[in-house]
Amino acid sequence: MNRLQRTLAALAGRIDTPAPIVLVDVMQDNIDRMQAFADQHGLHVRPHVKTHKCVEIGRRQLAAGAVGITAGNVGEAEVFAAAGFDDIFLAYPVWPSGTKGARLRRLTEAVRLRVGVDNVAAIDALADAMAGEPERLEVVIEVDCGARRSGAPPERAGDLALAARRRGLVPVGVFTYPGHGSAGPDARLRAARDQDAALVTAVRSLTAAGVTAQVVSAGSTPTVEFTSSGVITEIRPGEYVFCDLDNTRLGACTDDQVALFVATTVVSDWVADQVIVDAGTKALSREGSAERGYGGIAGTKAVLTKLNEYHGFLGLPAGEFRPGIGTVLPVVPNHVCPVVINFEELIITDSTGTSLQRWPIDARGFLS
Amino acid sequence: MNRLQRTLAALAGRIDTPAPIVLVDVMQDNIDRMQAFADQHGLHVRPHVKTHKCVEIGRRQLAAGAVGITAGNVGEAEVFAAAGFDDIFLAYPVWPSGTKGARLRRLTEAVRLRVGVDNVAAIDALADAMAGEPERLEVVIEVDCGARRSGAPPERAGDLALAARRRGLVPVGVFTYPGHGSAGPDARLRAARDQDAALVTAVRSLTAAGVTAQVVSAGSTPTVEFTSSGVITEIRPGEYVFCDLDNTRLGACTDDQVALFVATTVVSDWVADQVIVDAGTKALSREGSAERGYGGIAGTKAVLTKLNEYHGFLGLPAGEFRPGIGTVLPVVPNHVCPVVINFEELIITDSTGTSLQRWPIDARGFLS
Repeated sequence: MNRLQRTLAALAGRIDTPAPIVLVDVMQDNIDRMQAFADQHGLHVRPHVKTHKCVEIGRRQLAAGAVGITAGNVGEAEVFAAAGFDDIFLAYPVWPSGTKGARLRRLTEAVRLRVGVDNVAAIDALADAMAGEPERLEVVIEVDCGARRSGAPPERAGDLALAARRRGLVPVGVFTYPGHGSAGPDARLRAARDQDAALVTAVRSLTAAGVTAQVVSAGSTPTVEFTSSGVITEIRPGEYVFCDLDNTRLGACTDDQVALFVATTVVSDWVADQVIVDAGTKALSREGSAERGYGGIAGTKAVLTKLNEYHGFLGLPAGEFRPGIGTVLPVVPNHVCPVVINFEELIITDSTGTSLQRWPIDARGFLS
Repeated sequence: MNRLQRTLAALAGRIDTPAPIVLVDVMQDNIDRMQAFADQHGLHVRPHVKTHKCVEIGRRQLAAGAVGITAGNVGEAEVFAAAGFDDIFLAYPVWPSGTKGARLRRLTEAVRLRVGVDNVAAIDALADAMAGEPERLEVVIEVDCGARRSGAPPERAGDLALAARRRGLVPVGVFTYPGHGSAGPDARLRAARDQDAALVTAVRSLTAAGVTAQVVSAGSTPTVEFTSSGVITEIRPGEYVFCDLDNTRLGACTDDQVALFVATTVVSDWVADQVIVDAGTKALSREGSAERGYGGIAGTKAVLTKLNEYHGFLGLPAGEFRPGIGTVLPVVPNHVCPVVINFEELIITDSTGTSLQRWPIDARGFLS
């Protein structure tokens, strides 16, 4: 029995499955290790709360030394602001339609709020939304570094900063996201170098426009260890707090650093080389593929080969263990973020399985 | 501008994206059409609430003539029981560990509760959980019809019914799920025939064991139109209430029957043949593939070619429209069920976009 299985055995009878179990000692080590890395390299940590959406975990990240948090949408920023977080970077090119403009404006009354922008139309719309007080809103220019998602070409950063300044908003720097660093182990270093090059260009563009880049903000759990200590001032990793199979495969974490797994129970056993467990897409989301599976059982080679909504199909390679009906198993998710948001609360324990608390996933369901 | 785009235009300024929009008139037609089909074929409708998890929609299904509801786990059954639903079939081989045994027992005090079983260990555990009153719990034997998921071989149904009866539980029939009917348009009829054959065998097995099959329960939106009127007494469709792209592709619904779409806003436009929208996996879940995309824009050929958590990559085929930043677009999900559970509430409107209500997704987050 491996560590996670021992933890589950210690929790038996106290939890109903499927349930997300967090080993708080492992999680705290992850938080502290990232902070130590950043301190050593002179970088600020501004963790992305998308991974946990949990106020208590955000507080631990701040307590360890994070300068603030990163949010992915207005709703997340509101939840954390209401909980007392007062330095929030909404690292997204927000379009302030519907009630979002008024919501952003309200946020700036309580919080130092930075918002991503990558186009002039959004700059104008944000300035309009600030209704006469645009100077309350800091903006960070998003540039692309090869992920080909959002973000202006790096050499356009200065123009956008000037457009923001003309409208009274306060441009404070640039950011990018090296999403192409998740393509495989070899992609990480390359994406980190792309990120560095794009940010150097973007900073030059800002400087040429007469705008100081106070903030030069970079991703991400897979690329962070290759972060240059040149131009970058802060990192925005998210997944490091829990880790997952995707990051393990990329070499961005080790098996022992995985801090969240989904407890699931074997419920049916009628098919050769397979049992059915009670974690399907409702619990795990459909993250994976037929080739690499949809999550693995910790300490074994067994993977979920297929998911229905309430059913996980656990393939049992020849010679592998065959768990009986009623056995509780620890699933390590491929990608942890889309798992967390399915649940209302995290079951918090430690590697011994003796403690048991429940922490709400405060910002789940806040999608806009 | 097509119907959905007109609806969105009428809602402009009143909703923040991403948001799930339900056309209540289209949904009501879907409910009424399924009920009329069942009435015509002498079948009961017991809709699966997994698709909507919404008490108000469940009430409309009952008002139209449904005999009760189907749930996928104990938590859903509890939410609907608390709202007054008194006839619930938990169509899942529940293993009553943790607090689930006590929760099931409590449910039987307020509700006629039927639970799926496919093995003797679960029958014993359920009987133990009923603590001296096993006769309060009805069980339905799950048999496999080719989906190779849960379910005993059909010829074993009688043995399992007798095992349940020996422990004092009340076996009332058999059920199956023709999941292999979603493999493609040609698979639907074949899966429906497999389902029919499996249920005929299961009923014979029950009869031979001296157990009457009061309930012979079948799936599902893709296969329902091929349901034999022979041995089957009830159908458990779920997705028909909203429909989606997967069901459209299978021929199980038409474009005009899609009643739910996700309103999303264009937020970034820097890459040729692509814009970025604010619906990613946090809103849509990762349902799809690189080949068929992760959701389509209603009334166009454009599909989401890739999803990050907060970013949808909308591919723009040559000659297709190119929506500007700030444009709100209607995404039709590939598979609607995993979309609904990401949100706290449904935005309820009608094809004219004039009415606007918000209905809570009551059972979201109830996963165990």
